[in-house]
Order: sequence, then structure tokens, then C-alpha cells
Amino acid sequence: MYVGIDVGGTNLVAGFVTAEGSLRAKVSRPIQSSGDPLVLVNDLVSIAREVCQKADVEERLVRSIGIGLPGSVDKRKGDVVFCCNIPSLTARTPLSDMMRKQWDIPIHLENDANAAALGEAHVGAAKGCRHSVMITIGTGVGGGIIIDGLVYSGFNDVGGELGHMVICHQGRPCGCGRRGCWEAYASATGLILDTKESMQKHPDSLMWQSAPSLGEVDGRTAFDAARKGDDAAAAVVRHYIEMLACGLTGIVNIFQPEVLCIGGGIGNEGAFLIEPLAEIVHRDNYNRTDRKTRICQAVLGNDAGVIGAALSGPRELHELRDL
Amino acid sequence: MYVGIDVGGTNLVAGFVTAEGSLRAKVSRPIQSSGDPLVLVNDLVSIAREVCQKADVEERLVRSIGIGLPGSVDKRKGDVVFCCNIPSLTARTPLSDMMRKQWDIPIHLENDANAAALGEAHVGAAKGCRHSVMITIGTGVGGGIIIDGLVYSGFNDVGGELGHMVICHQGRPCGCGRRGCWEAYASATGLILDTKESMQKHPDSLMWQSAPSLGEVDGRTAFDAARKGDDAAAAVVRHYIEMLACGLTGIVNIFQPEVLCIGGGIGNEGAFLIEPLAEIVHRDNYNRTDRKTRICQAVLGNDAGVIGAALSGPRELHELRDL
Repeated sequence: MYVGIDVGGTNLVAGFVTAEGSLRAKVSRPIQSSGDPLVLVNDLVSIAREVCQKADVEERLVRSIGIGLPGSVDKRKGDVVFCCNIPSLTARTPLSDMMRKQWDIPIHLENDANAAALGEAHVGAAKGCRHSVMITIGTGVGGGIIIDGLVYSGFNDVGGELGHMVICHQGRPCGCGRRGCWEAYASATGLILDTKESMQKHPDSLMWQSAPSLGEVDGRTAFDAARKGDDAAAAVVRHYIEMLACGLTGIVNIFQPEVLCIGGGIGNEGAFLIEPLAEIVHRDNYNRTDRKTRICQAVLGNDAGVIGAALSGPRELHELRDL
Repeated sequence: MYVGIDVGGTNLVAGFVTAEGSLRAKVSRPIQSSGDPLVLVNDLVSIAREVCQKADVEERLVRSIGIGLPGSVDKRKGDVVFCCNIPSLTARTPLSDMMRKQWDIPIHLENDANAAALGEAHVGAAKGCRHSVMITIGTGVGGGIIIDGLVYSGFNDVGGELGHMVICHQGRPCGCGRRGCWEAYASATGLILDTKESMQKHPDSLMWQSAPSLGEVDGRTAFDAARKGDDAAAAVVRHYIEMLACGLTGIVNIFQPEVLCIGGGIGNEGAFLIEPLAEIVHRDNYNRTDRKTRICQAVLGNDAGVIGAALSGPRELHELRDL
């Protein structure tokens, strides 16, 4: 029995998860914007206790708590290294140690995109696969690499940053400070930028129906209008899928994972996104065997991060590695 | 005691390698261009026997033979999947089975760039590291990924193609059929193209001293002239290093390996290449911790592939995985 907590920009979501990865109970609450790490620690411990109550399981049966964070962590020390969206978590917050003072069991930290990939690998889209990759498309592009059933994140725990490979040398500025990163094109932010540019050029486009002003444009605007047959929107979607496929093909060439699943809001576009995307990746990738990576939508939604956080600690997973 | 054989475009090189990865004897011979796989198999078995004699070790003490090939292999079946530079090896040549009919011990196939990375990881530039990456710069850009001391090549054995990630969308044509792959810029082929272009623009450049005609340009031409202070050559080298760093930074963001080593002829440029390269990668990569990837030259030269091929089979390596 494990507890997983996904720390988002605005909410904490805790889940009570069995050793098989099934989510028995879930609770959420807003994050208090105190700026004080101890307030967050109190909330993390309290939401973990709350989810045990909701699952109707005694706290002493919980073997570990895993926490997924939108940033970099030092897994061995249990410290937050860098977490720009959570004001309470400054660099080097010893989050595991602080929590253990209140609940003395193993506390594991994990990057949120890695946690989501682990959830999908164990009970979601990549269930049963040794090697898989998950891309989470949101404000940025998060990546999670699963090798032999475990998160791979390099010798310093900060690997798996799939969004920050350059696909357009000297291209569009990226939040990381470089230019031309895949994330600048394949994120919802990139798609919104393309959508707005096209709308300004095409005042008659159906995109203006779902987003009457540019401030209302989101990741669905172009997809919705393209589904209705709007040419300008279809061109935006085509270009977006081409750029998404460009990076994805490189990832397939590198990892040749059994499954590559796509999560985040844009993943919900389903076959309208996945089919043309997979067609380009399969056409362009370097694999000349008949064993091709399956490109698909992630299936666990927001639960992936909670389940993956819960599973990020258990030693059993590590022992399963060579199976 | 293991035998490793590196199958190159023109030569076979066999090495007799101890369990610790030390190379006790080495022999080489040209590949016969017969187009008949059996001729190649006979040569492979015969060179393996020859290297045992040279090492003065009885053949019965050899526990396995590993073969590094410039192409894709099916490790489980022991088949060659695709190997465009060796006419004797057509698609699906059952190389391991054919060899075992003449010498009945385990025969392991490995891609040559992966084998070289394994050699460097065990006894070369990345000795002692759990996770490392090797880039081999030659006609193309080969990649080898070592995770937990073993080659990672995906569920179908054809992963690790680091050269075929796009860094310039719609850029320079690549041998793989796409445009803008890293290999098209970072390979010796890419550098030679840049060098020739610059020489045509700069008839007074010192590059013309080392290469009096364009047909004589090689991967050293620009580096040699840049070392002598030639401005045009320095610009070629600067641009080359920038493009090499562009892809390398993406690889570091993905893998955060403890060591990333560079082999192939261009790796021999030493500090003149490595220092500015490492400076860009460390400046641009996404790692905000103080544990940085060490970027360095590979140290084993051509022996890396032979040693790595020999070590690609031994079960002991696989058992070491979790250490």
C-alpha cells in the first residue's frame, strides 16, 4: 500500500495506491501560497493521512509516500533541487527529511513527468512493456523515460528533458533560454502561438467562433475548427503535427520504445492527432525492422502522476527490473 | 576469456579479451568481397581462432564471441537485420547460427557504435560510470547508450541512433532520407562540406595548403588551418563545434550521463575541439545541479569496438547491472 501525491501549480492530489498500481482513493486540495515550505509539508502529510482515511486503511499499512513535483529533485538525498512554480519550494528544500519528521516512513521524490510515465508504464498505455516513453504536452513538453520498468533520469536525476532538444537551430525562443527547442513548437504554448498568428491572417476562419478574442485561444481552438473543415485551422494543425512528429521521430530513433504515449490536454485530441502523427513517425524513423514503436494516447489522465508517484519508491519495482 | 570481432567496411579486426576487458592479442585481415555470407563466416571463425593462437590460449577457454557490425542486428535471434556496407550480409543473414555450426559457443551480435560505447564504458573514458554515452564521428554520427553498464538499444535492438535527430527542420539532406539530421552537420562528411564551401569563398585561406584540391579535403583540413590562425578555417571550426554542441546538448538533457565521450577521427582534435564544445554544452544544458556530465575524448581508439564486441555477450555483465 502506497501513497502518491502529485504537486501541481495550484493543487495537491493524493492517491492511495495498491502494490499492483490500482488507485483505491483520491483526494485533492488547493496549495496554500504561503511561501513557507513547512506549510506545504504540513499539507502534504495531512493530505496523505486524509487519503488513507478515505481508502479506509490504517496509516501504519502505508509503506512509503512518493511525491511528484514540477521540477528537479535529488532522489538520493530527498531534496528539491529546483521547482520554479511552487513558491514554497526553494532550491535545496530537504522535503523528504521535513516530511519524515512528521511521518517516519520512506519518502520518495520524483519529477512529475517521470512519475506520469511510470504510472502509464505500470498500469496505463504502456502496461507490460519493459521500455516506454511518455510525452506530456502542456505549457511545456515534459518527458518521462522508462527503461526496464523504472524511471531513467541520468546520474544526477535531472535527465529525461525531452522537450529541450533543438529541432530548429536558431529558431523560436524557448523558456529555457535557448532557441528552437522542440518544446517551443510542440507545447500547447507553441500551438496557441501558431493559432493566433493564423487567426490574425484569416479573419474569416472558424477558429474565431471558438475563440472570439485572441485571449481566449487555447490548445483546442485550431483542432476544433479543423474538425469542422476550416482550411486555415487545418493548416495550423498540420504544421503542429509535423513539428511534434519531428521531435518524436528523433526520440523513437534514440529509444525505440515499445510504446510512446502522449498525455496532457492535446493528447485528448485522440485519433485526429495520433493517426497522422504516427504515420509521419513511422515513415521517417530509422528502424528497418518490422517491430515498430506503438504511438498512442496516454490513458490514465491526471491519475498517471499520482499512481506513478506512489510507485516511484517501492523496492519491489527495482527488484522487478531484470524480469 | 572472450573474442571480439569488429567488422568494418574493409577489415576484420579480432581481439582476445579478458573478463576484465583487457585486450591480450589483436589480429586483422581484409574482408573478402565475395558477396557470399559463408565466406565471411569462414573468415570470422578463422580470425577468431587466429587471435586465440596469438594470445597463446586454448580455444576451449573462449566462452563467447561477440561481433560488432556496421548495421542493425536482432540480438535474440542472432540475425543481421540490415548492414548496407558489407555485401556478404544481406537482410536477415542468420550470422550467429551459421558461425555456431563451425564453433559451437555463444555468438553475440552488436551494432558497432554500441560495441565501441560498451568498450569505453568498461575500460575506457567512461570506466566506472553506470550511465554513459559515446558519439562516434565518422562518415556519419554513430551513437552508443550505456545504461547500468549495458548497451541500451530499445525493444527491437535498433535504438541508439543519436545521429538521426533533426536539429535543423527542413535543413541539409541526410543519408537517411530526412532533412536536417544532426549527422548531416556533425559528421566528418558535414564538416568536409562546410570546409569545401569556405575554401571556394576564400582562395587565400591556409586550408588550401593542407588540401591543394577540393578532392583532398578531409576532417582535419579546417582544424589544421584554424590552429595556424586562419580566420576562414576558424569560422568553419566554430560553426562545426556549434552544430555538434547543439545536438550534444539535447543528448545531455535527455540522458544526463556521467560521461559523454567522443570517438572517431574528429575526436582526435583533442582539447581544441573538446574545450569549446564542453563550454557550449555546459552553458546551454538544462541541468541546474552542480553534477555536470563530463564531455571528453574517447580513449581506446579502434580497440573500443573490439573490446566492446567481446564484452557484449558475457552474462556476468548483465548480472552486474544492479551493482
